Amino acid sequence: MAEQVNVALIGYKFMGRSHSNAYRQVAHFFPDLGAVPVMNTLCGRDRQAVEQAAGQLGWQQVATDWKDVVRRPDIDLVDIVTPGDSHAAIAIAAAEAGKHVFCEKPLANTVAEAERMLEAVQKAGVRNMVAFNYRRVPAIAYARQLIDEGRIGRIYHFRARYLQDWIMDPNFPLVWRLDKNAAGSGPMGDLGAHIIDLARYLVGDFDEVTGMAETFIKERPLAESSDAGLGASGGAKKGQVTVEDAAAFVTRFTNGAMGTFEVSRFAGGNRNANTFEINGSKGSIRFNLERLNELEFLDLTQPSTEQGFRDLMITDGAHPYMAAWWPAGHIIGWEHTFTHEVRDLMAAIAGKVPVHPDFLDGLRVQQVLDAVERAASSRRWERVAR
Amino acid sequence: MAEQVNVALIGYKFMGRSHSNAYRQVAHFFPDLGAVPVMNTLCGRDRQAVEQAAGQLGWQQVATDWKDVVRRPDIDLVDIVTPGDSHAAIAIAAAEAGKHVFCEKPLANTVAEAERMLEAVQKAGVRNMVAFNYRRVPAIAYARQLIDEGRIGRIYHFRARYLQDWIMDPNFPLVWRLDKNAAGSGPMGDLGAHIIDLARYLVGDFDEVTGMAETFIKERPLAESSDAGLGASGGAKKGQVTVEDAAAFVTRFTNGAMGTFEVSRFAGGNRNANTFEINGSKGSIRFNLERLNELEFLDLTQPSTEQGFRDLMITDGAHPYMAAWWPAGHIIGWEHTFTHEVRDLMAAIAGKVPVHPDFLDGLRVQQVLDAVERAASSRRWERVAR
Amino acid sequence: MAEQVNVALIGYKFMGRSHSNAYRQVAHFFPDLGAVPVMNTLCGRDRQAVEQAAGQLGWQQVATDWKDVVRRPDIDLVDIVTPGDSHAAIAIAAAEAGKHVFCEKPLANTVAEAERMLEAVQKAGVRNMVAFNYRRVPAIAYARQLIDEGRIGRIYHFRARYLQDWIMDPNFPLVWRLDKNAAGSGPMGDLGAHIIDLARYLVGDFDEVTGMAETFIKERPLAESSDAGLGASGGAKKGQVTVEDAAAFVTRFTNGAMGTFEVSRFAGGNRNANTFEINGSKGSIRFNLERLNELEFLDLTQPSTEQGFRDLMITDGAHPYMAAWWPAGHIIGWEHTFTHEVRDLMAAIAGKVPVHPDFLDGLRVQQVLDAVERAASSRRWERVAR
Amino acid sequence: MAEQVNVALIGYKFMGRSHSNAYRQVAHFFPDLGAVPVMNTLCGRDRQAVEQAAGQLGWQQVATDWKDVVRRPDIDLVDIVTPGDSHAAIAIAAAEAGKHVFCEKPLANTVAEAERMLEAVQKAGVRNMVAFNYRRVPAIAYARQLIDEGRIGRIYHFRARYLQDWIMDPNFPLVWRLDKNAAGSGPMGDLGAHIIDLARYLVGDFDEVTGMAETFIKERPLAESSDAGLGASGGAKKGQVTVEDAAAFVTRFTNGAMGTFEVSRFAGGNRNANTFEINGSKGSIRFNLERLNELEFLDLTQPSTEQGFRDLMITDGAHPYMAAWWPAGHIIGWEHTFTHEVRDLMAAIAGKVPVHPDFLDGLRVQQVLDAVERAASSRRWERVAR
Repeated sequence: MAEQVNVALIGYKFMGRSHSNAYRQVAHFFPDLGAVPVMNTLCGRDRQAVEQAAGQLGWQQVATDWKDVVRRPDIDLVDIVTPGDSHAAIAIAAAEAGKHVFCEKPLANTVAEAERMLEAVQKAGVRNMVAFNYRRVPAIAYARQLIDEGRIGRIYHFRARYLQDWIMDPNFPLVWRLDKNAAGSGPMGDLGAHIIDLARYLVGDFDEVTGMAETFIKERPLAESSDAGLGASGGAKKGQVTVEDAAAFVTRFTNGAMGTFEVSRFAGGNRNANTFEINGSKGSIRFNLERLNELEFLDLTQPSTEQGFRDLMITDGAHPYMAAWWPAGHIIGWEHTFTHEVRDLMAAIAGKVPVHPDFLDGLRVQQVLDAVERAASSRRWERVAR
Repeated sequence: MAEQVNVALIGYKFMGRSHSNAYRQVAHFFPDLGAVPVMNTLCGRDRQAVEQAAGQLGWQQVATDWKDVVRRPDIDLVDIVTPGDSHAAIAIAAAEAGKHVFCEKPLANTVAEAERMLEAVQKAGVRNMVAFNYRRVPAIAYARQLIDEGRIGRIYHFRARYLQDWIMDPNFPLVWRLDKNAAGSGPMGDLGAHIIDLARYLVGDFDEVTGMAETFIKERPLAESSDAGLGASGGAKKGQVTVEDAAAFVTRFTNGAMGTFEVSRFAGGNRNANTFEINGSKGSIRFNLERLNELEFLDLTQPSTEQGFRDLMITDGAHPYMAAWWPAGHIIGWEHTFTHEVRDLMAAIAGKVPVHPDFLDGLRVQQVLDAVERAASSRRWERVAR
Repeated sequence: MAEQVNVALIGYKFMGRSHSNAYRQVAHFFPDLGAVPVMNTLCGRDRQAVEQAAGQLGWQQVATDWKDVVRRPDIDLVDIVTPGDSHAAIAIAAAEAGKHVFCEKPLANTVAEAERMLEAVQKAGVRNMVAFNYRRVPAIAYARQLIDEGRIGRIYHFRARYLQDWIMDPNFPLVWRLDKNAAGSGPMGDLGAHIIDLARYLVGDFDEVTGMAETFIKERPLAESSDAGLGASGGAKKGQVTVEDAAAFVTRFTNGAMGTFEVSRFAGGNRNANTFEINGSKGSIRFNLERLNELEFLDLTQPSTEQGFRDLMITDGAHPYMAAWWPAGHIIGWEHTFTHEVRDLMAAIAGKVPVHPDFLDGLRVQQVLDAVERAASSRRWERVAR
Repeated sequence: MAEQVNVALIGYKFMGRSHSNAYRQVAHFFPDLGAVPVMNTLCGRDRQAVEQAAGQLGWQQVATDWKDVVRRPDIDLVDIVTPGDSHAAIAIAAAEAGKHVFCEKPLANTVAEAERMLEAVQKAGVRNMVAFNYRRVPAIAYARQLIDEGRIGRIYHFRARYLQDWIMDPNFPLVWRLDKNAAGSGPMGDLGAHIIDLARYLVGDFDEVTGMAETFIKERPLAESSDAGLGASGGAKKGQVTVEDAAAFVTRFTNGAMGTFEVSRFAGGNRNANTFEINGSKGSIRFNLERLNELEFLDLTQPSTEQGFRDLMITDGAHPYMAAWWPAGHIIGWEHTFTHEVRDLMAAIAGKVPVHPDFLDGLRVQQVLDAVERAASSRRWERVAR
């Protein structure tokens, strides 16, 4: 019999919906896991809202105080999907209570928080995972496999962009994601953290960085609440945007590869364009999250006349995770990056083995973000702590 | 309170998994439906297999005799996902027992069966729907909306291909889908039915057809059972393939548009390439199921210098069905075509209103398939009955 | 020293410009040909217009009566780019005068004409070539090479469309291309002839065909002259369109492959979309004339996980014709399909060897066009004469 | 009558072939120019080689000493296509002799040289142009037109890559382009100069930059001569590569836009991938040189549901330069970027008006290259001189 893992989910907005879906679905598609999640408790401050969410999302009960929840003996796993400024407190308390911890990215708003979080889970000896879900896009897992098999060779270039366009309207309000206190940073933490983690997953550690950040729209209408909402009318009071709208940086990896990175919320027409290209001595790879069931692969070991980017549908049973789904050519959705995360987290809990990306990976990303922020300010190259 | 609709699902293979997923998920994403499905009974002949499937797929109980199930007073909706040769018997019995009926496509293996099925549901006054799920791809629903709004104008051309490649290996065995008695036809019923239905949905009724069918590999190793399986070893006994491997036909629609259609299981590299293009006096549309979150739209009312196929991500909240899902640019999977079907079926049951595509639509598709088969044999144009 | 080949070009409109460009350029890029064209005489009925054209296009002299020109002793090669109704008379006279003949496609407006033309050049023993220029797209020549090397295997499918949109405006005038007497047919002869020739080049001979043709706009404003011109004002007198606007047909090739073909001038957004796909037992190929420097190739002999259409830039020195041009990745234009034709024609003249496609190929295409026209009328399958 | 402009071309390799083609072709496609080039003299040091080139390329005479040529009274225009270390001497001598000067890019190997060149042409009052030919890609000229018309709005982002892969083989020899003395720099001057010029053309002036450069393969076999050649055998003597293999930098434009740039000769599969994307408040643009007849345009003023990158074929008569060529959908090749340059240079000579990009533009690009080189060395932001 599979182990029952009682989950408490702290938070219930966009990421709460995404994680809930994964818990609901994982056992239906991956039936042979040694551990299965039980959707025990959904936690949020606003009781009415959290009750409604629990009903829709499929949770057995609700709670309003995370401090109680993380100590409850019946809870095995604490999953944190709140804004970044509360990650550390919740994660550390959960670890101290001996719970496994699953935390949304970025792990924390500062390196110091991330270090304390790592210390806490290591001391407690619990499973710990950061929700860099794009490692579980089958196409990206397959890219990693190609790299591991030597198909790409020595990597020269990693070139990543994560571009969105949802705040281009100057009347879009000052939601929490535009407030440095709550969000820690703008697209660097939100989007940049993802591509930094992918760079570490696919290429290796960062040595040093330099770059820039910009805020194009410096004042915005105040939002009534922290909910992302509609554009405000003309007469609204305005407040300062305290995070960047866009950023770009270049890096040297410790293995000698070059990296270029760019994030923006002002790249019109790019709804969710997390794209990267890798060029190595034996092959190249291209990926675009908006077509996440595809991977472009170029094999430099073939004759020059036959070299071309080949558009692979990553939907075969032999591709990572895909035996669980549908026949070849029947695509899966973005949400299943989380289903795959939960699958691997359950396997790790059952097997008492580590799972990646763990809090150390989360700290490493935080260290890169920190170096980029320092470089944008010092206007020099900054070394990435490790 | 939402009406509880007790569902009995007859069959549990590929389509059984797909329908089950839709029943599990629909209320989590569409919370305000007047009716919600209850996954009451999963029915199949092999008790052990059906019990295992029910466990994995989330059904409350199992049954092995559909004749009992369709008459049970606690069942409200009978969903049929068996091979085509059993659709008529099950659907008619269910209708006669006053159940709503949801039936996989093609509706039947013959026009006569489809006519009797239609008669039965009409006489019973029950909701009836055929699972032409591609009408519920948001991009296709949006294409229909553009057509309805006059953005395409008078339609001149509909050009559809549904190409796959899963039986190209001559050692792929003689599964039920290659047996005319069970499957009725080859890719014409399996794939052609889909694009015929889409043509009717987007363009209108067929007037007349002519065309051809081919069987490239005429003998194959016998499969041990009706399960789709692995290639057999060289010494296996062989049997006749009794359905076509590929077919193509041309049509005149009653509104004067031209249509061209092609289906194949021998189109290497086309894993699931259900593609079409529409050319009208005011605009054009292109679609590819392998990229189902996108629709290409060309607007001929713009200046010639600015005319180009525009790649729309059909992931905005204002696109059909998409407010239920994720932020723009976060794609959904193939499986949710079924979630959307069940959503609309539940709404129809709650509202006591018709839902499309109904059994009349299913019959119309059958009549086109029949005319194509007659034309392939008579080597002439054949009129489509209506 | 290279042989000097004195050319007389009969006609000077669109195709006249294209052929002239090829004659001007060929020796600059293919310097080692045994024969080089001399742009001796440009011939047209309107002296003033032909003089102006000769000046711009680089011809040494002009003439107004082709009957004189084709008999002149200093002329070696007669190149015919007039409307189809005059091809036969000119070509036969030229052959009888012992001239090599290069003729625009389609070779003739009828099978009978084409037969007489073939007979004339065979009797005269002169070089003869039909300007099916797309055989000399490097990507298509490379596709043929892949087929010849067995990389595609047994061909199951050839699927071709040649779609344009330049007469969709109902006020576009009744130019010569819309007049059956001058043009012979509509897009079948203009566009269909190209894809029929490519099918023969890449797959093989046609066995039988059936299909349809449509004229969507049956009356149009009369053009003042045979020049393609601007849309006429509302009050213009109208005349009957006597050719089809679109056509579609299916075929069986003699080697058992299936073919589907469609041509249209009403496919909005398709400026010049000559596209085809070939599916064979070992690989697939896709081509699009609007991206003529690319060829998509899929290799079914690779593992299933690595199968994908690979976008080859056909710009390497090792690709057909491309050593003459620029470094890899620097694309060439449509016009050089003619440069390559002239290159091969010059080589054939110098080497006294045949060149393809010759008048026999031209006749074969005519026979297919004739069978399609018969089928559209008889509403049955028609055998292709051979 | 059109003015005859006697041209002397100094150099005859790759760029010599490209410029010669433009001189040969321009009047055939742009017949109404007030000035037409006469291909008077081709100049190179190796008489035998230059004579052979002149024959193939269509020059009337040859010369071996550029110092004589640039002073000859019958020469009107000196065109310089030699390696960068000789540009300044030739251009200054030509200007001092009162000749118009057309110079390949980058204008010089140093800022100081470029300044002296600019001074010379300004003092002489002659037409001067730098061959940043990509301004004359019709799609890029059209992009500029869209920007000028306000269709893109305030520009936030310019994102450019120019990626090639022709020296990835470690045995590729140490040709002149890999020698800092001859080439000035690696892909920064060769490829980066192009995208810097496009950035200035489309966005505006650079304010400051920071970035990095890398040499992945630090030693290579010595080439026998300065000709680009074949990979050497294993035993060859090796020399130091003194230019970068790749570089990346970020910039702030004076108008507040952000820019990111990357160049490489190690980006496998990117044969000639000069790509950029512009994001503005009203629209976005994407371009790829390997598909130079296309431009992707996204219009943010349309409803969100209808926003998508639209693939425009830039082949309409109303697109820049395209009335001269073929009907819509018939693509042109890379070489005609030079034909368009020569067209505009001839018009400027005839009209006695300036033409862009002139030597001031060339100097501006040099100043950006210089700032990037300084930043790569100082590891700080560097201001771009202006």
